[in-house]
Amino acid sequence: MSVARARIAAVETHDIRFPTSREHDGSDAMNPDPDYSAAYVVLRADVADCAGRELAGHGFAFTIGRGNDVQVAAINALRSHIVGRDLDELCADPGVISRALVGDSQLRWLGPEKGVMQMAIGAVVNAVWDLAAKRAGKPVWQFLADAEPEWLVSQIDFRYIEDALSRDEALELLRAGKAGSAERAARLREAGYPAYTTSPGWLGYSDEKLTRLAKQAVADGFTQIKLKVGADLEDDVRRFRAARAAVGDELRIAVDANQRWNVPEAVDWVGALAEFDPYWIEEPTSPDDILGHAAIRRAVAPVKVATGEHVQNRIVFKQLLQAGSIDILQLDSARVAGVNENLAILLLAAKFGVPVCPHAGGVGLCELVQHLSMFDYVALTGTTDDRVIEFVDHLHEHFTDPVRISGGSYLAPSAPGFSAEMHPESIATYRFPDGTFWMADLRERNEGVAA
Amino acid sequence: MSVARARIAAVETHDIRFPTSREHDGSDAMNPDPDYSAAYVVLRADVADCAGRELAGHGFAFTIGRGNDVQVAAINALRSHIVGRDLDELCADPGVISRALVGDSQLRWLGPEKGVMQMAIGAVVNAVWDLAAKRAGKPVWQFLADAEPEWLVSQIDFRYIEDALSRDEALELLRAGKAGSAERAARLREAGYPAYTTSPGWLGYSDEKLTRLAKQAVADGFTQIKLKVGADLEDDVRRFRAARAAVGDELRIAVDANQRWNVPEAVDWVGALAEFDPYWIEEPTSPDDILGHAAIRRAVAPVKVATGEHVQNRIVFKQLLQAGSIDILQLDSARVAGVNENLAILLLAAKFGVPVCPHAGGVGLCELVQHLSMFDYVALTGTTDDRVIEFVDHLHEHFTDPVRISGGSYLAPSAPGFSAEMHPESIATYRFPDGTFWMADLRERNEGVAA
Repeated sequence: MSVARARIAAVETHDIRFPTSREHDGSDAMNPDPDYSAAYVVLRADVADCAGRELAGHGFAFTIGRGNDVQVAAINALRSHIVGRDLDELCADPGVISRALVGDSQLRWLGPEKGVMQMAIGAVVNAVWDLAAKRAGKPVWQFLADAEPEWLVSQIDFRYIEDALSRDEALELLRAGKAGSAERAARLREAGYPAYTTSPGWLGYSDEKLTRLAKQAVADGFTQIKLKVGADLEDDVRRFRAARAAVGDELRIAVDANQRWNVPEAVDWVGALAEFDPYWIEEPTSPDDILGHAAIRRAVAPVKVATGEHVQNRIVFKQLLQAGSIDILQLDSARVAGVNENLAILLLAAKFGVPVCPHAGGVGLCELVQHLSMFDYVALTGTTDDRVIEFVDHLHEHFTDPVRISGGSYLAPSAPGFSAEMHPESIATYRFPDGTFWMADLRERNEGVAA
Repeated sequence: MSVARARIAAVETHDIRFPTSREHDGSDAMNPDPDYSAAYVVLRADVADCAGRELAGHGFAFTIGRGNDVQVAAINALRSHIVGRDLDELCADPGVISRALVGDSQLRWLGPEKGVMQMAIGAVVNAVWDLAAKRAGKPVWQFLADAEPEWLVSQIDFRYIEDALSRDEALELLRAGKAGSAERAARLREAGYPAYTTSPGWLGYSDEKLTRLAKQAVADGFTQIKLKVGADLEDDVRRFRAARAAVGDELRIAVDANQRWNVPEAVDWVGALAEFDPYWIEEPTSPDDILGHAAIRRAVAPVKVATGEHVQNRIVFKQLLQAGSIDILQLDSARVAGVNENLAILLLAAKFGVPVCPHAGGVGLCELVQHLSMFDYVALTGTTDDRVIEFVDHLHEHFTDPVRISGGSYLAPSAPGFSAEMHPESIATYRFPDGTFWMADLRERNEGVAA
């Protein structure tokens, strides 16, 4: 007797771009005009889920416009690794596909483990976790929190990090994290996970809009906001003063330079803002500059140093921790090679006792990363002290299971999967260049030229 | 009166792949089956050169097979920055286009300054230098060596490296390099620049082939060879013994692990090979692991530590030097953002007193990188002591101005440009998938399936 095995039948990709630059949403010192975009991938299985719907895994890389096509091409280059894979095997052990993608020696040359190829692997690996969690009928945070420590450790590639975190140490941390996890899961479902908001602080916003949104953030229950800085010191002083006036002395205000400075410049600039009590300085310089961050941290204390949204992999995070470069680790769900590598990063942070406050915003990054922080709380570090997930109130309406914020906290997702699925209408509208929005936009431009 | 200005009329790209994996050429512990490939770009000007030939700049990124299409897509994403540029302005100041490409904020998100986008920028920037040197009627090494220090410094982006190398320090180093440069240029034209050869040492070669090629290397006048190691210690001991027997005790034998090891593993493995007197250990671990290289270097001295072919940018090189991680800096011509960034890297190495022994081989990397080392000798450090350029005897026949090796040295190129131009027939034959070689290969495979 032979039973047909369920398989991945197709890998679909879409170049999705939102025209966010027209409202200066997301504008900062390095990125004046981002068009928030997703290189989006769908892994289609040849079976239905338990509700009779077509079963599929969804994932994406986040980019800010031009080059989203290059990112899609990189995901397409991974297609032959996925199509035809046995669905049960894939879902039972996502580490297999994770290692296959990272270890493809010809594709590895294009990184290694960084940039466009790394994000492509992240998109596909995250789509596999979406699929695995859907099959298990659990949201990813719970899927991870329910897993055995031995299995979680088997999902991690310890290459290049063993000198800082051994397999045994990881196992010990995960075993310790199990104690009290059921109670914490219950508390999470009740109270959610603390958030902070960046919505008031975009560089392109007027002082009036900044003040209004900062006050709104307090009214909404947030205990921290963030301002973009680094383009012009005089402007930054004025905006920071306005923000402080709007929120009072108690609320934490973080600032974010988006890599704008050299090391000495960062030290001077943060010094000039010190009177307004910045909670952390985020991305003061290049994310590659491990030693530079360490020098900045020594100089600007007690202001904390945070980075991570552009950190390429676990190896750089390892060194940021080893060198004492950061007070806050800003993990990103879609910059590194997916859940498997993020497990390694969460464990490194736990080992070094550095709180993780994830980067989010963009397209769908809030949706993804909440699962990782919630797993960390329930089954790894067991605490939300000094931990907040970034929240930006943009583009959630395009997702079928959008984040829910209440009283300044992320509520725990309950739908199975990774909250990564977009509405078919959003894809049809914003696919570049042939979605209905972009086709209409092109017609308007052409008419503008003709007129 | 208006005179039409010469411009860049078109940017042409080609996906070129050579079937090198069939002979195990280039095989090492991480890359068992590379198909040496080039994502090749041609900048076509709308004027002829002085000989009446169509003027064009040539550049490329080197990859090892799959994913070369992604690399081509990344170069295509830069097209709008180039087409229509004024030729005189472009050639007079390549720093302008270099900054425009690195600074495109939407594309920068895909790195930043690393991976596929970084190599794409390198390909285009190098093509601009090819064009500029051709217009000046000089090989790139001479074009650089003849340039004024002030102008060279204007070509460099000091962002993120100023804490280690200021503009003034760079200027001072270049001014000092001018003394005696005419004599050194004459000596270079006579005697060439020292090389070492990796041809004997590929992991997929038999001991007999290794021994034969090692003896040949000595007969050819090389004073250093290199062996690939890291897959199997017993094999490495046997192969190293055979190589040492073939070349004698005096000749330098470097070993190259191609990132195969964790930090403690690297220390142990190099220790086990110490009896054969390895000159340097190359890429013992991840190129991202600055602190790991420093730990390895402390442990394996007096064996030297070398890395660089996969180092993404000047910021990581800066830290490798600051942390004392390397004895030898292995600059690569096509991994970073082109000549402009490599000028910064050469200056960083000069400032820290670390010799540069460039990575080469692949497709056309020897052709390109010789120009950078020769500039360094003539007009920067003024020495070739403990400096050698890697030489691998593959694929040079595809270039119109191939490297010339004599007595174990690279002879100085005399043709104008960057030696980056491939024969049109090579492109027509090896373009993937529609070149004549690959079409015939496909037919053969199909017939094999049909038979």
